[in-house]
Amino acid sequence: MTSSSFFPPQRTLMGPGPSDVPARVLAALSRPTIGHLDPLFVSLMDDIKSLLQYAFQSDNALTLPVSAPGSAGMEACFVNLLSPGDTVIVCSNGVFGGRMIENVKRCGANAVVVEDEWGKPVSVDKVAAAFERHPEANLLAFVHAETSTGVYSDVAALCALAKQHNALSIVDTVTSLGGMELRVDAWGADALYSGTQKCLSCVPGISPVTFSPAAVERIKQRKHPVQSWFLDMQLVMGYWGGESKRAYHHTAPVNALYALHESLLMLKEEGLEAAWARHQLNHQALVAGLEAMGLEMAVDAAHRLPQLNSVRIPEGVDDAAVRSALLNEFDLEIGAGLGALAGKTWRIGLMGHSSSARHVLICLAALESVLHDQGAKIRTGLAQAAAKAIYAKG
Amino acid sequence: MTSSSFFPPQRTLMGPGPSDVPARVLAALSRPTIGHLDPLFVSLMDDIKSLLQYAFQSDNALTLPVSAPGSAGMEACFVNLLSPGDTVIVCSNGVFGGRMIENVKRCGANAVVVEDEWGKPVSVDKVAAAFERHPEANLLAFVHAETSTGVYSDVAALCALAKQHNALSIVDTVTSLGGMELRVDAWGADALYSGTQKCLSCVPGISPVTFSPAAVERIKQRKHPVQSWFLDMQLVMGYWGGESKRAYHHTAPVNALYALHESLLMLKEEGLEAAWARHQLNHQALVAGLEAMGLEMAVDAAHRLPQLNSVRIPEGVDDAAVRSALLNEFDLEIGAGLGALAGKTWRIGLMGHSSSARHVLICLAALESVLHDQGAKIRTGLAQAAAKAIYAKG
Repeated sequence: MTSSSFFPPQRTLMGPGPSDVPARVLAALSRPTIGHLDPLFVSLMDDIKSLLQYAFQSDNALTLPVSAPGSAGMEACFVNLLSPGDTVIVCSNGVFGGRMIENVKRCGANAVVVEDEWGKPVSVDKVAAAFERHPEANLLAFVHAETSTGVYSDVAALCALAKQHNALSIVDTVTSLGGMELRVDAWGADALYSGTQKCLSCVPGISPVTFSPAAVERIKQRKHPVQSWFLDMQLVMGYWGGESKRAYHHTAPVNALYALHESLLMLKEEGLEAAWARHQLNHQALVAGLEAMGLEMAVDAAHRLPQLNSVRIPEGVDDAAVRSALLNEFDLEIGAGLGALAGKTWRIGLMGHSSSARHVLICLAALESVLHDQGAKIRTGLAQAAAKAIYAKG
Repeated sequence: MTSSSFFPPQRTLMGPGPSDVPARVLAALSRPTIGHLDPLFVSLMDDIKSLLQYAFQSDNALTLPVSAPGSAGMEACFVNLLSPGDTVIVCSNGVFGGRMIENVKRCGANAVVVEDEWGKPVSVDKVAAAFERHPEANLLAFVHAETSTGVYSDVAALCALAKQHNALSIVDTVTSLGGMELRVDAWGADALYSGTQKCLSCVPGISPVTFSPAAVERIKQRKHPVQSWFLDMQLVMGYWGGESKRAYHHTAPVNALYALHESLLMLKEEGLEAAWARHQLNHQALVAGLEAMGLEMAVDAAHRLPQLNSVRIPEGVDDAAVRSALLNEFDLEIGAGLGALAGKTWRIGLMGHSSSARHVLICLAALESVLHDQGAKIRTGLAQAAAKAIYAKG
């Protein structure tokens, strides 16, 4: 045990999250702690709620940050909307769909699994067929932006299908919120959870969630108590307002919420559409550069996430050695493949503050240098120009 | 909505938590975020684990910070150790014992409740009688330091009783860890959870937990899956090590863990026994000052928490008006009474960094000034000298 203060290096974070946290957000994080029942903190909570409604493009009254990471936000959606014996259609096309199945089982509900290949979007047709076979299903759960593969699915179409079958929808937007088009109310989604450490570029540890009036109604009507006390939205609602007087539930993570507030404010200042466009532009520049180098994207252009780029690891290249060299020589973190894609892909994040021309150009330069050192067959000297050509077009 | 950056005032935090966070911890909090799978972060995790073992006075291998507040730490203990149908003896002498009962019910287990008056410790005799009546009970749950009342109970005696009846123990140490004697291994406690925002003087949001080998064995032997995926210790163990290779579970709250590490380091530098003694000394000085002013403590001297001082609100004094004036005039937060004690007591915290002579003297001065303004019948001009006399004795 070292038993001395920890001074982290200044990394450039281009993995699947956390993304680079702007100095402005870190400064907010370290402001003096005040009490979680302080009147000034209570008004900050209201402000955070409004900013989250903007980020989610929703008027949902029940919109708040769960005081725990995205996987707790996922669990909050399932334990509040499911009762034992319910049937849920769960779409699995990557790690996080698989985690949803686990959540359904632990609620004592039945999961009807719609499988799609890793790297492909959720098939709307297969989901429609599942609803035909299981008219008793009262919930559809799927991932908007699969962080494990770099693929997005069609939220609007899937939520419409759920509505048509009188089912509610749970949508994982951990990696999508703030980085690509997401319109909760217009698309008719019912319960969504996200994370702070991806396209919001806040520190990890908090999970924004939002529940539609129909979802709230189901929570209010439930007969079986929510199995989690900590995540029981009936209780959390009392703490986060909506009711007239705040009831103490738990101690909010005060400083993390300073940081979340600041990151949401930055998103609002930029404008949501502008942020989506920025993520798209930097994605195109990165892809142009990678392809100029001779690397191949792992996902079809039609379903690629702009904020998380899955790249095939070239034949004969040592995955771990490349990532270590990037980290040690360039202080640059990119992500390994997850689950079935381990050793087959890298995941390059362009999320939030890490979605910038600077990040794209540094990543291309570092990757070219390291791959060249490792003897990989790549084309050198072309990537920067290819990326810059995209920026020139704008 | 204000939509501008939030700049909190510099409060003096003497409520039931959060306590004042030292500048050194806030500085650690805002260091650059690195990836949660970064090798440097993984070694920080090991260091945090060792420091937590020191704070808990335990060699338990399964010792780690849950990535969520104390109420999630509580839930982690219950959902991992209980299976449906189990019988649990739960001691209730305040708000947090009541919350334990809720946790037991939501696990589908049976709670045998041992009630003690709010403001009194848990009766060891009543617990012994409950074990006699319920030999099937396989768990005893109680609160070491009841934050709602300011009372402590006898952990060593209660854990010995549990052992004698082949039951495991769950002990709430949210408010005790770092602020008063707690010896997990010597006292034979099995599962304990705490919070970061009390006597550790770290920011709120994280819950240190520790599980004895016997508790780990029960977790390994369980047949019914843990109802929470996020809090399933079998999975969390894989992430926090103990096994050879770390398995991804969730994204750790990186920056909050920088802060926790720093606060644990400060505790180690001071020394645990020295920290306990400091809490005791400041408590005595505060009590001397309050009594010199003519105020009465709400808890018998034999069971008073040094870190959370329950004081009776004098007849005719407006509780909320006093707390508002303290906050508005002195930027000083003290706690209101909770539950059955609302309006009857104040809770003055001397926790962690907020346990200092400076805090004691400021609090006495501010309280005297505000109570005088409110026309309360108090003796003025005596409190400071009474407190200083305690410090002079040392």
